Amino acid sequence: MSRPQGRKQENHKISRELLVLTYGALVAQLCKDYEKDEDVNTCLDRMGYGIGIRLIDDFLAHSAVKKCRSYSETADMIAQVAFKMYLGVTPSVSCSSAAGNEFSLILDKNPLVDFVEELPAERASLCYCNLLCGVIRGALEMVHLAAEVTFLQDRLKGDAVTEIGITFLRKAEDRKHKR
Amino acid sequence: MSRPQGRKQENHKISRELLVLTYGALVAQLCKDYEKDEDVNTCLDRMGYGIGIRLIDDFLAHSAVKKCRSYSETADMIAQVAFKMYLGVTPSVSCSSAAGNEFSLILDKNPLVDFVEELPAERASLCYCNLLCGVIRGALEMVHLAAEVTFLQDRLKGDAVTEIGITFLRKAEDRKHKR
Repeated sequence: MSRPQGRKQENHKISRELLVLTYGALVAQLCKDYEKDEDVNTCLDRMGYGIGIRLIDDFLAHSAVKKCRSYSETADMIAQVAFKMYLGVTPSVSCSSAAGNEFSLILDKNPLVDFVEELPAERASLCYCNLLCGVIRGALEMVHLAAEVTFLQDRLKGDAVTEIGITFLRKAEDRKHKR
Repeated sequence: MSRPQGRKQENHKISRELLVLTYGALVAQLCKDYEKDEDVNTCLDRMGYGIGIRLIDDFLAHSAVKKCRSYSETADMIAQVAFKMYLGVTPSVSCSSAAGNEFSLILDKNPLVDFVEELPAERASLCYCNLLCGVIRGALEMVHLAAEVTFLQDRLKGDAVTEIGITFLRKAEDRKHKR
């Protein structure tokens, strides 16, 4: 609340290349640490979760968004506001279930892989950007929305686009009480 | 050269919080991997070097800076253009040697530690932001300037400011030929 006027404009905006390269260093380190791709993926997801539960405060403070009234609005918010704010891209959103709780964020271009040509042959199961899934999951949990977030397609693996699937779980309240 | 017009403005600017938190995850992982702070510091510096030698291309492409004609100009460029571009802050610069090859970048505020309250007692020798030293060293080397870059003061360690020392070495050409 005591944030100086204009701070957002003046200080917060940076070029994303340092993020992209720092992220690359993180993934490379985890690949040194863990032999199995699955372990790297799990670790990235867990780290992302830890980031998401902290990033949500910054997001709410700077985005001036209002409470979403539907899963559809929430998915749009993630794509159009959050991705734009933190990665400088806007994925397209599609709803992929009749129940209205499954969405896909489709990225024609994924800036996090700007400096990655292809995955090494021995890392074919690596979800290079899996941190993003954890970030989304963590941030959603902080606004009481339980979700499963996974990569469904990945251009790094030869798919035509990169697609992140978000499935909102209807048991957010149950889960919270269990903890 | 074939970069679309306006790409810089449209796509490149992001909020820095994801960088700051991702960097935190990287340091935390290295602290798990290495018991000794010195080893973490060395690893961060080495990673930073790897980032710097790649980031310089992006910097030259997007900053539209001209060739610096002195160490002093170079130090100013790092502070006023590069730090601003990649971290959203502008350190002040002071020359700290009569020979004119030692400079200090002084940060009143270091955004990379935005989410860090203090170093744990068992990590008192950690140079949390040591990646930056490596980045600067790597980037300078790519424009044929050999330099030593180290933290001289760190607010995380109780100092009044954060100070990065850059010493330009006069043997850049010699070093290059040896390789």
